[in-house]
Amino acid sequence: MAAAGLPDKVASRADLPGEVTIWEVGPRDGLQNEKSVVDLDVKLEFIDRLADAGLRTIEATSFVHPKWVPQLADAADLLAGLSKRDGVRYPVLVPNERGLDRALESGVTNIAIFASATETFAQKNLNRTLDSQFEMFDPVVSRARAAGLEVRGYVSMVFGDPWEGPVPVDQVVTVGRRLLDMGCSQLSLGDTIGVATPGQVEAIISAFGSPEALAVHFHDTYGQALANTLAALQCGVSTVDASAGGLGGCPYAESATGNLATEDLVWMLDGLGLSHGVDLNKLADTSAWMATRLGRPSPSRVVQALRG
Amino acid sequence: MAAAGLPDKVASRADLPGEVTIWEVGPRDGLQNEKSVVDLDVKLEFIDRLADAGLRTIEATSFVHPKWVPQLADAADLLAGLSKRDGVRYPVLVPNERGLDRALESGVTNIAIFASATETFAQKNLNRTLDSQFEMFDPVVSRARAAGLEVRGYVSMVFGDPWEGPVPVDQVVTVGRRLLDMGCSQLSLGDTIGVATPGQVEAIISAFGSPEALAVHFHDTYGQALANTLAALQCGVSTVDASAGGLGGCPYAESATGNLATEDLVWMLDGLGLSHGVDLNKLADTSAWMATRLGRPSPSRVVQALRG
Repeated sequence: MAAAGLPDKVASRADLPGEVTIWEVGPRDGLQNEKSVVDLDVKLEFIDRLADAGLRTIEATSFVHPKWVPQLADAADLLAGLSKRDGVRYPVLVPNERGLDRALESGVTNIAIFASATETFAQKNLNRTLDSQFEMFDPVVSRARAAGLEVRGYVSMVFGDPWEGPVPVDQVVTVGRRLLDMGCSQLSLGDTIGVATPGQVEAIISAFGSPEALAVHFHDTYGQALANTLAALQCGVSTVDASAGGLGGCPYAESATGNLATEDLVWMLDGLGLSHGVDLNKLADTSAWMATRLGRPSPSRVVQALRG
Repeated sequence: MAAAGLPDKVASRADLPGEVTIWEVGPRDGLQNEKSVVDLDVKLEFIDRLADAGLRTIEATSFVHPKWVPQLADAADLLAGLSKRDGVRYPVLVPNERGLDRALESGVTNIAIFASATETFAQKNLNRTLDSQFEMFDPVVSRARAAGLEVRGYVSMVFGDPWEGPVPVDQVVTVGRRLLDMGCSQLSLGDTIGVATPGQVEAIISAFGSPEALAVHFHDTYGQALANTLAALQCGVSTVDASAGGLGGCPYAESATGNLATEDLVWMLDGLGLSHGVDLNKLADTSAWMATRLGRPSPSRVVQALRG
């Protein structure tokens, strides 16, 4: 810390992954929850600044129907306007075949699909049953894979559901395995309402047998996101979703507190001496700039401390 | 969660202490950093509500000279007015012999002294050198012990110092051991500026050899407090300092973000199935009430989510 404002580096005794991939979700998961639509040029600058700060995976937008997510209705224009950099992936969310058609027209190389771990959320969010959601995903994944795309599978409501309460571990594993069997290369296990605690995180990751294909996606609604991330790293997970400045939230949770802030994650990874490639100061500058554009302070503790 | 609003209980694979003592510091460490002085009757109601919520150790006030901490100038009146409950400890901070005299006059049974792990902070905060601070503590601890009091030793700037940067582990251990040898029954290892990360926490606790006499005191300035707490629990520490609603802060840190919020800690402990005796809903009500008295929202994520 001191001069550089960075934490002292001391490795953990636990066997943590030496390198962590930060999957930046701010432009998609963050901005899709904003009340107002952010201008295209601001989005483009945001993504470019994130890449400049060293992020190598930036989920850029979503091809969900504009009727449902008007905030990202400019997905095709955004992808056309993006100054793509070598070595940076710009995945996009694709809900169905129509979304895949639009993504393919835009020349994307990485997509993500969005599944539910619970019956109620499958019905409310996808208008499908828990079981029939796979009928929607199957042609998306097979056509995407045939076109050479990489496919990530989000699993939402993994650690708790606002209507059903606790979610059985074997139900999560069944949903996740079906996505992997279908051709997803990675699962992102989502605590959509932010209720998880570290024992649950360990239990779910253990139940999958191996952490290799797993990523974690925590919301900080109840302040647990970073502690849960530590638990996941201790279980061998090496891909962590985070949102610059803590942008985002979940319309189904009681508070608007958003995703794990990328800066708070980077502070911990820096302290633990785990490499990730991100320049914390550039990132905090970007989030402070974005907070000004959105007209409210960043919920990230690190951004508040360094730029507040 | 669901109906009760509580997390699903899943134990950790790590060998965590089955029972955790929450050392509530809100009335002292929280309120001493408030810009305005809180009325005595509000303080008394705050402490009584904390006891009613199940907290069994409530650091009530401080006998630091009113010139330095005018916020707690009413320490004697507060102790006289307190409705003490059986089974609840109400420790007070005592900086020197004059403070001890006042504490003894007030009939306290538990005191805490406040030491520095670094040379610069010893000089700025105590007007002593790192070494000569013990000359001040020695008569306080010996007289207190002779009077049958229990003495806790706070060690501040354990994980980083705003002037010196990283703090050598052996320096922290030397300071801590001298306090224990002097007669302190517990050390509270303080991350006064909130910069620590989990590897540091493990390293410091390990360096002491045994976690038995250790407590941890984290500030959430950089969002690390709960992850660091998890690391400390994994090392066998079973006493955790926290402040209701996240009240407090450090005048030497760049942001006003305060102590680990007791509610965020309780959410994690509940999820891990560790017993602590606190009723989360009563506690969140208390913090929401206090936030109204202070005229600004609680920084606790749990309070924001449940009562925001």
